Amino acid sequence: MSQNIKYAVIGGGSWATAITKMLCVNLSEVSWYMRNESAIEHIKAHKHNPNYISSVEFDIKKLKLTNDINEAVAYADYLIFAIPSAFLDAELQKLTVSLKDKIIFSAIKGIVPETSLIVGEHFHFQYDIPYYNIGVITGPCHAEEVALERLSYLTIACGDAEKAKNVAKNLAGNYIKTKITDDIIGTEYAAMLKNIYAIAAGIAHGLGYGDNFQSVLMSNAIREMKKFIRKVHKMKRNINDSAYLGDLLVTGYSVFSRNRMFGNMIGKGYTVKSAMMEMSMVAEGYYAAKSAYKLNQGYGAKTPIIDAVHEVLYEGKNARTVFKKLTEKLD
Amino acid sequence: MSQNIKYAVIGGGSWATAITKMLCVNLSEVSWYMRNESAIEHIKAHKHNPNYISSVEFDIKKLKLTNDINEAVAYADYLIFAIPSAFLDAELQKLTVSLKDKIIFSAIKGIVPETSLIVGEHFHFQYDIPYYNIGVITGPCHAEEVALERLSYLTIACGDAEKAKNVAKNLAGNYIKTKITDDIIGTEYAAMLKNIYAIAAGIAHGLGYGDNFQSVLMSNAIREMKKFIRKVHKMKRNINDSAYLGDLLVTGYSVFSRNRMFGNMIGKGYTVKSAMMEMSMVAEGYYAAKSAYKLNQGYGAKTPIIDAVHEVLYEGKNARTVFKKLTEKLD
Repeated sequence: MSQNIKYAVIGGGSWATAITKMLCVNLSEVSWYMRNESAIEHIKAHKHNPNYISSVEFDIKKLKLTNDINEAVAYADYLIFAIPSAFLDAELQKLTVSLKDKIIFSAIKGIVPETSLIVGEHFHFQYDIPYYNIGVITGPCHAEEVALERLSYLTIACGDAEKAKNVAKNLAGNYIKTKITDDIIGTEYAAMLKNIYAIAAGIAHGLGYGDNFQSVLMSNAIREMKKFIRKVHKMKRNINDSAYLGDLLVTGYSVFSRNRMFGNMIGKGYTVKSAMMEMSMVAEGYYAAKSAYKLNQGYGAKTPIIDAVHEVLYEGKNARTVFKKLTEKLD
Repeated sequence: MSQNIKYAVIGGGSWATAITKMLCVNLSEVSWYMRNESAIEHIKAHKHNPNYISSVEFDIKKLKLTNDINEAVAYADYLIFAIPSAFLDAELQKLTVSLKDKIIFSAIKGIVPETSLIVGEHFHFQYDIPYYNIGVITGPCHAEEVALERLSYLTIACGDAEKAKNVAKNLAGNYIKTKITDDIIGTEYAAMLKNIYAIAAGIAHGLGYGDNFQSVLMSNAIREMKKFIRKVHKMKRNINDSAYLGDLLVTGYSVFSRNRMFGNMIGKGYTVKSAMMEMSMVAEGYYAAKSAYKLNQGYGAKTPIIDAVHEVLYEGKNARTVFKKLTEKLD
């Protein structure tokens, strides 16, 4: 069955490019939607995405490239969304083709700003997609290392194990190992929360805290993540599995993480606004911090790190003062 | 009470130097033993340890420096051992002064090669020190960052909470936060096991595995550590606390870790012997791997990472082949 599934990848960034590369190993055809028409032309002519992980070479015969999202959605059984969460709503507004009966996997790590929902919930509540047709693709996985064909492990989450297995099988390859889980809520929240912790790691680094503190911060972060996710969706899960702890570490320790970089600039004294402008893009964790903080007003989990990031990003408080106070709450 | 305790620090390396620095903040006098007489003369003349974290300046009036271990032991109520585990036995052979009634804290992370015991057990079984007089000082803490006065968190373990509190109080300062626990066995095994995982991280890096894999390796390592320690000493502990997970991360992610460096050389193709010679010192994890593997023959915990390191270091197997097999066992 998994051989005959039709996939469309939605997005033209590095993660979308990496996922398309993985699918092309196993499938004879993949639909790939991106907004940028000149990038499509470039890929057709040169076999490489000009803007992201450009070293990846594609077998053009396998790609059904399109800049019409409706064409991609109409074609596919399984849709894999891999665009920044901030652009998701605008893309979905373009849809005239129905999402009914589509299987939707999110490779997005974040909160949809318009609804303050994680992506799975957004599809469920806004588009009436039943949860058994929704899944999550999560790391720990930098797209750059997929390009280099360095061994990486993905976790594929779906309430319907059959669908998770299909995606797991179609993404797996020589350098990609996949496992499945039914914890779609937990894996998606983990993927979103880790970006907040990466901002915290960046702020700490920018303020001059060292590796000793970073390890304490990560140790506290995983405990905090566990408490938070347990409030959102209580089930038996090992928070130290790769999809949770591994994903936190690959981001929190990465000097390439946009979220960590964003935090680092703030720690070094940039205002939130100027850090955003400097990066000319918004770090996912920026929205995540707002939503997680707001959500937790209802849950009441102890989340000193999320609270600290929220104070710095949204309450105009001084990063140095906030983190000095935070250090008293960690252990 | 904690003000009047007499301490002796045993060791002249960077961790001993860092601990002496911490004690000097809170105490008017500290005995400091090291073998190297010319280092003692240098410290007396120039206020700095010439060989390790040399930037640290000492108030010489506070230091009772000696190269006679018996003098240091006779002086002190509390002894803090901070020498490589490979040298411990030889140092203890020099003792003519009794250890009876001494409170012994180990800041050593490893196995005593002569007895294959962790340091606390070595003192207990070889010197008849009761467990309530034995404690452990553990990180996550690079000595180099103590020198830079970067915020660090220590965990002080002792079955007797009063003694743990005394040490915690005497080490704490502006940039050192301390907490206590009664898990002396767990913290000491964690400190020893993490060096094996750091060797594994180094081997993987040397073989060309990337950050995605490193995060999966660490996620598996902490789960493996939890299983192992539970077999050794079952009690309620959160393996994600800083003394366990934090300590694993600060070492596993550090490019300065001797254990990681040692692994890296082996991953790059050095033989075990030539890597040791090249480093002109033995990485603690080298002995730890042998002991942990042997111990686990009795426990039967699933420890694929320890097994893999053992195969490479002691069974003459090819690192690339062993790690390829290991990747199949991780998730």
